[in-house]
Amino acid sequence: MNNSMLTVASCQVELAVGDIAANRRSVRSAISEAVDGGAQVVVLPELANTGYMFADLDELRNLAEPVDGPTVSEWVALAAEHDLIIVGGFAEAGADGEVFNSAVLVDASGVRACYRKAHLWNTEKDDLFTPGTGRPPVVDTAVGRLGVMVCYDLEFPEWVRTAALEGAELLCCPVNWPLYPAPEGERPIEVVKVQAAAATNRMFVVAADRAGRERGQDWLGGSVIVDADGFPLTSLGLGVAGMHLATIDLSDARNKTISELNDVHGDRRPELYFEAERRARGSAH
Amino acid sequence: MNNSMLTVASCQVELAVGDIAANRRSVRSAISEAVDGGAQVVVLPELANTGYMFADLDELRNLAEPVDGPTVSEWVALAAEHDLIIVGGFAEAGADGEVFNSAVLVDASGVRACYRKAHLWNTEKDDLFTPGTGRPPVVDTAVGRLGVMVCYDLEFPEWVRTAALEGAELLCCPVNWPLYPAPEGERPIEVVKVQAAAATNRMFVVAADRAGRERGQDWLGGSVIVDADGFPLTSLGLGVAGMHLATIDLSDARNKTISELNDVHGDRRPELYFEAERRARGSAH
Repeated sequence: MNNSMLTVASCQVELAVGDIAANRRSVRSAISEAVDGGAQVVVLPELANTGYMFADLDELRNLAEPVDGPTVSEWVALAAEHDLIIVGGFAEAGADGEVFNSAVLVDASGVRACYRKAHLWNTEKDDLFTPGTGRPPVVDTAVGRLGVMVCYDLEFPEWVRTAALEGAELLCCPVNWPLYPAPEGERPIEVVKVQAAAATNRMFVVAADRAGRERGQDWLGGSVIVDADGFPLTSLGLGVAGMHLATIDLSDARNKTISELNDVHGDRRPELYFEAERRARGSAH
Repeated sequence: MNNSMLTVASCQVELAVGDIAANRRSVRSAISEAVDGGAQVVVLPELANTGYMFADLDELRNLAEPVDGPTVSEWVALAAEHDLIIVGGFAEAGADGEVFNSAVLVDASGVRACYRKAHLWNTEKDDLFTPGTGRPPVVDTAVGRLGVMVCYDLEFPEWVRTAALEGAELLCCPVNWPLYPAPEGERPIEVVKVQAAAATNRMFVVAADRAGRERGQDWLGGSVIVDADGFPLTSLGLGVAGMHLATIDLSDARNKTISELNDVHGDRRPELYFEAERRARGSAH
């Protein structure tokens, strides 16, 4: 048996802002479907406890939970029951009234990492969420090294790179992609960016998106599992609630070579980037 | 008249390693076709003077030319004759016998920039080319701010970002993409990376690739002109020699906003990347 093989599920669910009980049921049901499909790693959308389209900070604050609250505790219990790894997004109540757009990685032993989204999207900035300042976690799990980031974070290649350089073999990304029109015949650009993120680092990437509509906002439903060459392993059932499931060989992500003499990480020229970044910042750090 | 409008040509030509005279004729003919099409900026492939599949350093060294040699001088003359900007790759003879995989940007006034490829591909490393150490140039031209990099450079988002942060509105990339199989129905991953590079920075990107076969090496022929949203403006006539032509509005690349509150450059968290890069380097710079 090749112990680098791994079955991953991306759960594209419908959620309803504010209805914590219904969201918890939807997520439980999605996890159950993933277990039935043989999944060892289950990725849930961003803000899977609360939904997304908050009216204001008061509404958000009333829905947010600490990391040891009922939503994440339920995920830990399900992870223990089914020997799963679950990565999911939730609205995290901070200690001083602030709220973070967070994602946890949990396994049978409990919460292995809690990450706070560093790049906030649109109205998230508008007195709702406090941006994170920590790097994306990369966790050694029983099935491989898993990284975590949230939605718009993925669109910053520097951020993806930090997780990849820490050795992430599979990057797990809860997302909520709003539906924007793409030209006829074109893939959503969010998916293109995921493909590039994967290929640029020879790393698997799974994005778990939302389906449906919420307070007038349509969700793209662009969930995808991408291989280390950058190609989707699951077909894009855009917009449709359902599960994406793929069995991957993580050893592909441990091999960064792309020709006899090329290595996607070894070929970097950090001394040049570092200097460029320093100049761009105009600082003498 | 909107003076941010610009017609760009990507010339996907066949070249023959070692036959400088034939290559020069092919390139002249391609430039002439671009002029007939109304192009104001013409992008040529990587190593457009020499071809690519060198037997050894001796062969390469015998073919390389200084930046004021006949190939680049001819491009300057054509740029002056037709009031063009030409970006093209050439094997550059250095002062001390080293050879660089370079690209120039020339206009009617002469050579505006000469860039030496910083990320070398496969056998280029193998005693052929010396890697560059300079950043990708971004040149203020009569038609807009144009950046230049070469082929594999494009696959390093950090490098693309340096040009974008310097204000490149159109990134001009001579490339020689070897043909690798992609899964049925999938775009070549090189093109996907170009799309992501463009969308991530809201910048137009043009790649001028090779067509045909050379000493047993098939070329992808994946030339493309991509808009600031990351979508191709020209259809991919994979592998076929010919010209890609598009008229673009550079003002799209001057607007980095992608939502009411988001800006692809303004949303960066360089203080976090900088720290991550410093840790990755293990240095105290």
